[in-house]
Amino acid sequence: MTVRRGRRPGSSPGSGSAAQEAILAAAKKQFSELGYPKTTIRGIARAAKVDPRLVAHYFGSKQELFVTVVELPFDPETAFARLIGPGPEGLGRRVAEFALNVLDSPSARQTITGLLRAAASEEQAAVLIRDLLVQRLLTPLTRELGGDQPELRGSLLGSQISGLAFARHIVGLRPLVEAPRDVLVDALAPVLDHYLTGSLRDPAT
Amino acid sequence: MTVRRGRRPGSSPGSGSAAQEAILAAAKKQFSELGYPKTTIRGIARAAKVDPRLVAHYFGSKQELFVTVVELPFDPETAFARLIGPGPEGLGRRVAEFALNVLDSPSARQTITGLLRAAASEEQAAVLIRDLLVQRLLTPLTRELGGDQPELRGSLLGSQISGLAFARHIVGLRPLVEAPRDVLVDALAPVLDHYLTGSLRDPAT
Repeated sequence: MTVRRGRRPGSSPGSGSAAQEAILAAAKKQFSELGYPKTTIRGIARAAKVDPRLVAHYFGSKQELFVTVVELPFDPETAFARLIGPGPEGLGRRVAEFALNVLDSPSARQTITGLLRAAASEEQAAVLIRDLLVQRLLTPLTRELGGDQPELRGSLLGSQISGLAFARHIVGLRPLVEAPRDVLVDALAPVLDHYLTGSLRDPAT
Repeated sequence: MTVRRGRRPGSSPGSGSAAQEAILAAAKKQFSELGYPKTTIRGIARAAKVDPRLVAHYFGSKQELFVTVVELPFDPETAFARLIGPGPEGLGRRVAEFALNVLDSPSARQTITGLLRAAASEEQAAVLIRDLLVQRLLTPLTRELGGDQPELRGSLLGSQISGLAFARHIVGLRPLVEAPRDVLVDALAPVLDHYLTGSLRDPAT
């Protein structure tokens, strides 16, 4: 998703919106080429030929700018339609496979870990990322399924998938990095089924 | 560089170990009073009455210094003995309750979110945190249980619990923040049972 604030045709060169557009283009390029940790406001400003203070003025922190220009590595509507289409049978398995496919693509993984890093390092970015997650990913998926408590189910799913990305790609827990894909899918599938369509009441109580 | 006055008897004025001790004490105090995000190397150096470069020289980055001085909010051996003691029945529920107890204590939560933030912001800190997690928490717990694949089980458990902390306390997903404790324990218990003692092969395949 991109939140473009591109200038309308006819806006004069050197106007605020032209500078904004140059900043957004430079930010997009640098975040995608250098990755989130190595991108700096200073480097973006240099590429956009503006003062670094102007970047902060228009877009706030590096974290907020990242959330502004980030594009999800997949289109949620298309992806969710394909995951849900075949019915509840095997849904957790398909979602686990989909999540691991995303994390195993280097550029998509860079986007996901960038979002986790931005959320962890700045509260305002965390708020933007929360809205992105809830409005574009978690709640649409669980609402589409039509069960009870879609928001809670979406959040539980989000906790496991963000935790998987965090533990596997930021902390680098070796068994998660080294396990064959199928082993992880097998282990995760019943958990995702539980969160998406299972009874959330513990049967043992 | 000034050396703090309360140095250990016998250490010579200006010695490295007295300065290191002062830095560690100041770091511990500031991380615990200000929290991880608001603590700075500069502030620690000021409190320890040393040059900030000396802090970097001895302890590396803020992230690394945090991992060096962090104290786990519980003693793993004691905690795990109490969790495992009553047997496999209800284990996932006890672990979920324990994790939520930790996260609901403000000072413990501050330590946990500090670890997540440090790992997300610096690779060298992530390595230290990985070792801390694997050696002190995840593998001891699953080894003690004596089942198959203790490392993989520990890592899967770690992914869910770190993801819960991340989604609930860093991203702030509302349903996880607002759900009554029992609802979360009910939802998490079968997942933690699955990771700790269940069959990791998906029965549907």
